[in-house]
Amino acid sequence: MSARRVLERADELATFTEEPGRITRPLATPALAGAMARVREWMVEADLEPVSDAMGNLVGRRGPGPRLIIGSHLDSVADAGRYDGILGVLIGLEVAAATDIPLEVVAFADEEGLRFQSTFLGSRAYVGAITPEEEAMVGIELGEPLFDGASGYLEVHIEQGPVLVAEDVPLGVVTAIFGQSRFNLAFTGEAAHAGTTPMTMRHDALAAAAEFVLAVERLAHETEGLVATVGELHIPHGACNVVPGRVDLTLDVRHADDVVRADAVATLQGVGRPGIDVSWAPIHHHEATPVSPTLRAKLAEAIDGRSIELPSGAGHDAVTMAGLTDIAILFVRSTGGSHNPGEAVTEGDVALAIDAATRFACSI
Amino acid sequence: MSARRVLERADELATFTEEPGRITRPLATPALAGAMARVREWMVEADLEPVSDAMGNLVGRRGPGPRLIIGSHLDSVADAGRYDGILGVLIGLEVAAATDIPLEVVAFADEEGLRFQSTFLGSRAYVGAITPEEEAMVGIELGEPLFDGASGYLEVHIEQGPVLVAEDVPLGVVTAIFGQSRFNLAFTGEAAHAGTTPMTMRHDALAAAAEFVLAVERLAHETEGLVATVGELHIPHGACNVVPGRVDLTLDVRHADDVVRADAVATLQGVGRPGIDVSWAPIHHHEATPVSPTLRAKLAEAIDGRSIELPSGAGHDAVTMAGLTDIAILFVRSTGGSHNPGEAVTEGDVALAIDAATRFACSI
Repeated sequence: MSARRVLERADELATFTEEPGRITRPLATPALAGAMARVREWMVEADLEPVSDAMGNLVGRRGPGPRLIIGSHLDSVADAGRYDGILGVLIGLEVAAATDIPLEVVAFADEEGLRFQSTFLGSRAYVGAITPEEEAMVGIELGEPLFDGASGYLEVHIEQGPVLVAEDVPLGVVTAIFGQSRFNLAFTGEAAHAGTTPMTMRHDALAAAAEFVLAVERLAHETEGLVATVGELHIPHGACNVVPGRVDLTLDVRHADDVVRADAVATLQGVGRPGIDVSWAPIHHHEATPVSPTLRAKLAEAIDGRSIELPSGAGHDAVTMAGLTDIAILFVRSTGGSHNPGEAVTEGDVALAIDAATRFACSI
Repeated sequence: MSARRVLERADELATFTEEPGRITRPLATPALAGAMARVREWMVEADLEPVSDAMGNLVGRRGPGPRLIIGSHLDSVADAGRYDGILGVLIGLEVAAATDIPLEVVAFADEEGLRFQSTFLGSRAYVGAITPEEEAMVGIELGEPLFDGASGYLEVHIEQGPVLVAEDVPLGVVTAIFGQSRFNLAFTGEAAHAGTTPMTMRHDALAAAAEFVLAVERLAHETEGLVATVGELHIPHGACNVVPGRVDLTLDVRHADDVVRADAVATLQGVGRPGIDVSWAPIHHHEATPVSPTLRAKLAEAIDGRSIELPSGAGHDAVTMAGLTDIAILFVRSTGGSHNPGEAVTEGDVALAIDAATRFACSI
């Protein structure tokens, strides 16, 4: 019954959008403000006292602190689905409605970063970790942060990968959030005429890059839990009849263990071909976020039925919270992946998630 | 002495350009008309009777037909060097000046195709092989073609590849002009999140394309005389954090033997990876152009000093002429390659080329 209500509320929140016909709800827009106002009403219904900050984060609280926080975000990517972020907030409301324990439900205003190509503006404002430059960028003055301590943080989120669907399991307990290294690589050989340059006299940057792409794939296959991706590849001034003299590509390496990730990067930095120069420029780097072993065990115990443990390959608001309190993350199976209109959860899976979150909250 | 004159004339023709500061001389421009007018004066000096056609081709003739034709082109690519095409015309003039044999020197008006992205408009107009659509495109009516038979066709051209420089040989006798097959290929897998999609669940179009790039390179290395190139590669909607779902690339395969080329293409069409669809779209195809064994032997005999035999990986006006008369092609070493301002020949090499062309012309 409460699962039914979660799905209906997700449908209603999907109507708050900046783009007719699809869901696009960035920070600091009428669409997000409308969704937040509706959630505020539901907080009051669930016996939570709502309060907001200048970033647009919305918090519903009851009882003395330190409380358990259940949170996620209400902003979206462009052409989004209706569950990424939203589901975690709505399930928090169901936990509040089903219990009378001290609790804080948080709806963060910016996790996707669509408006400013930023990272976790919502949760970082909530905990007071925004820079003056970011305040100026958004055009706000934050004042005192809303966060005033917690006994733990739970985030319920659709799995953004295909593992739960492939394993045919409704719920997953997250073991860690991957650390990540991103690089821009440039392979420089020598451009040459494709008809007149014999094979033995070429310095083909694309052939060297192709060897690298396959080395990346092979290493990730051979290393337990590693994911590594070349997602962009570009040949500047490429032409059908020119041997590529230069190739630019991106590398994205992620693992739950920072040492394994660093070793993988070091191994790949040793891949090369005579006559081709390879330069590496780091563009992004963050360490893995561990979850609390205690909360993770309690979450696993709270699940009535089958579940698996799995890492999170994507970041979440929980990354911000991990610096301040113990965190746990519960994944819910989504048949349509995430960040697209096809996101889909079943009422049965949502019911299992509400049940697990409620038992978990009562165990803290 | 005549080699010195060739270099000076090449310097002078380089001043006829549509772009100040660099050499750009397309069909149907004042720059090309100016260069043609100067060559017309040199033809008269060399005791040749000049005549033009509506395309802008310039012919200098003397003596009864069928004559030996020595020709090449005066148009250029954008930001060109000063010898590609030009050298063959200027050496033809030196042969005319050094002998009194029946002879025809031809300066073609369009080989590079810069103006209309066309192929060999000059030589095809000269032999009467232009379509009405092409006449309309250029805005001319051609009338009777200038070509009235020949005892053979000689083209002297800078080598557009690095072989003569690498082998430290001034001259090369061309064995054949490569046949060529060009394709657009599309690799289709499945786009996926680079963080949340385990390696075993990916259908990475770029990894499949990388295997293909290396298969192309390997096959060309293993097949005598084959050159094969992936010159363009593009990931539509590629992003650093997305496993590529699609890759588009070009394939260019060339060989002097059409059967070898067809076999190579067939072999590559068998390269694939489970879960990745590969589609092939042909975009260009032409067969190899053989040279006359008789003229090739006479050309080799006419060379005083060292030379090697090598195929031509690029097309030339000789391709058009091969349908109508026996052809021979003499390559001259260029330290700066071709199609760029760095093209460079030495006075000594040019002297050897003039000498070989003159002996050859007298032997026909």
